[in-house]
Amino acid sequence: MNGKVYLVGAGPGDPELLTVKALRLLRTADVVLHDDLVTPEILKLISPAAEVQNVGKRCGSKTIRQEEINFLMVARAASGSQVVRLKSGDPLIFGRAGEEMEALRRANIEYEIVPGVTSALGAAAAAGSPLTHRQASSTIVLTAGHRASSGRASAKDDLDWSQFATTESTFVVYMPGSDYFGVSNHLVAAGFAEETPCAIISRATTPEQRIYRTTVSNLHRAPRLASPTLLVVGDVVKFADRNLVEEAASVAEHGFEAALAQSVTASFRPDEEPVA
Amino acid sequence: MNGKVYLVGAGPGDPELLTVKALRLLRTADVVLHDDLVTPEILKLISPAAEVQNVGKRCGSKTIRQEEINFLMVARAASGSQVVRLKSGDPLIFGRAGEEMEALRRANIEYEIVPGVTSALGAAAAAGSPLTHRQASSTIVLTAGHRASSGRASAKDDLDWSQFATTESTFVVYMPGSDYFGVSNHLVAAGFAEETPCAIISRATTPEQRIYRTTVSNLHRAPRLASPTLLVVGDVVKFADRNLVEEAASVAEHGFEAALAQSVTASFRPDEEPVA
Repeated sequence: MNGKVYLVGAGPGDPELLTVKALRLLRTADVVLHDDLVTPEILKLISPAAEVQNVGKRCGSKTIRQEEINFLMVARAASGSQVVRLKSGDPLIFGRAGEEMEALRRANIEYEIVPGVTSALGAAAAAGSPLTHRQASSTIVLTAGHRASSGRASAKDDLDWSQFATTESTFVVYMPGSDYFGVSNHLVAAGFAEETPCAIISRATTPEQRIYRTTVSNLHRAPRLASPTLLVVGDVVKFADRNLVEEAASVAEHGFEAALAQSVTASFRPDEEPVA
Repeated sequence: MNGKVYLVGAGPGDPELLTVKALRLLRTADVVLHDDLVTPEILKLISPAAEVQNVGKRCGSKTIRQEEINFLMVARAASGSQVVRLKSGDPLIFGRAGEEMEALRRANIEYEIVPGVTSALGAAAAAGSPLTHRQASSTIVLTAGHRASSGRASAKDDLDWSQFATTESTFVVYMPGSDYFGVSNHLVAAGFAEETPCAIISRATTPEQRIYRTTVSNLHRAPRLASPTLLVVGDVVKFADRNLVEEAASVAEHGFEAALAQSVTASFRPDEEPVA
């Protein structure tokens, strides 16, 4: 009798941002095949009896092809195992779940999709910034900084961003890479105003979380933050919580280290200056 | 001593798609102020000792103004309560969280944002459809069918959709309303090709879930599905799981009732015809 494959979103990083269903499945799975970006704190929740394998493709020199991941899922399920294919964020956004579902259908393996909190939502919560606002934005655009298939961080591979350069949209770039100069130029060339607020959010919802707020034209001056990062561009960033973000001005005035907010949770504490 | 307000996402409907953190907070909150769209199954998880109030603005003749919700949050927290402001989906998408955060900052009340699984992710999981795909889409656009402030379902109030009518994007409309004819015309006028696949997803991840797949030009022939609904437009819908969706052709051939998939979970079962 065949087992089953669950395509599960692990959320942005904080183990408490797993869904109740994802946690239940991690505790009962026979096999867990996970991406690089799933945090160690989440991996600790997997049943000790389970076979756990990192099938991440991003880091390290040893790369696993998509076909191998598909083969592993099918083989383990065909031998009767309950398999969790664990992806950071949500499985249906930039996660190649489409290709994995097709492989499972072709192999006649039962599967189920368990959605998760996608990284953009974790990042926005971390920054205390809404993604829509009646006075600023009624639309959110989620895109990837570089094509998943290319493996290169160059902005040259990207699609045309000019269609999204409106003041009514919030523009979110997953995996923007560390070439902030290139990304800044790409945004300006696409028609984004130079003074448009933007924020880089690094390792959102984890203890290493950092948020740096600047503008499109000053983006290249931002410190290099640890990956995974996410870039939010748009007027909503003005509404971000000033107590949670590092800013260009503070770095200039007080030096870089003093400007670190060191804030782990997306919480505002009173008796600090509110955002105007 | 002041209490604290948690702006919490309840996810798309299934109680198991709450985050672990949201569930913990619901079980320990003194006060829960929730939207209309939060499902009864989720409300059952709230501590029996808690004060629970529906502050929904969408349904019913009795409407609560945003200012009243802000006042309630501030007043309860100021008297020392732990307050959960519970919103369907994610709090930072179409949920006016920006305005609520500003009110809390002005009142010097501590708050924290707890992200949730936004409705688009629940709907896509329900339909077995990816939102990005290497062969179809590298960008997702999330917009609202009618402005939250207008209360009218007319497409005339909407922003210009033409900038999003590219074959490389997945276009998701929250709250598309029941005027499918108007929405179809709006999409065609914006430049979406008539044959672009689309799906209406009703009450995703709940026992009443229904998914209807059609094309932009045939959208007006779709059955009226129970709200809340969500519309996904784009080539990725081609990859949706044929076992999970109702289709125009089946309705025409077999009658409407026979075409109901009645499928509750987003799971593919083998020995049925795979999608080509």
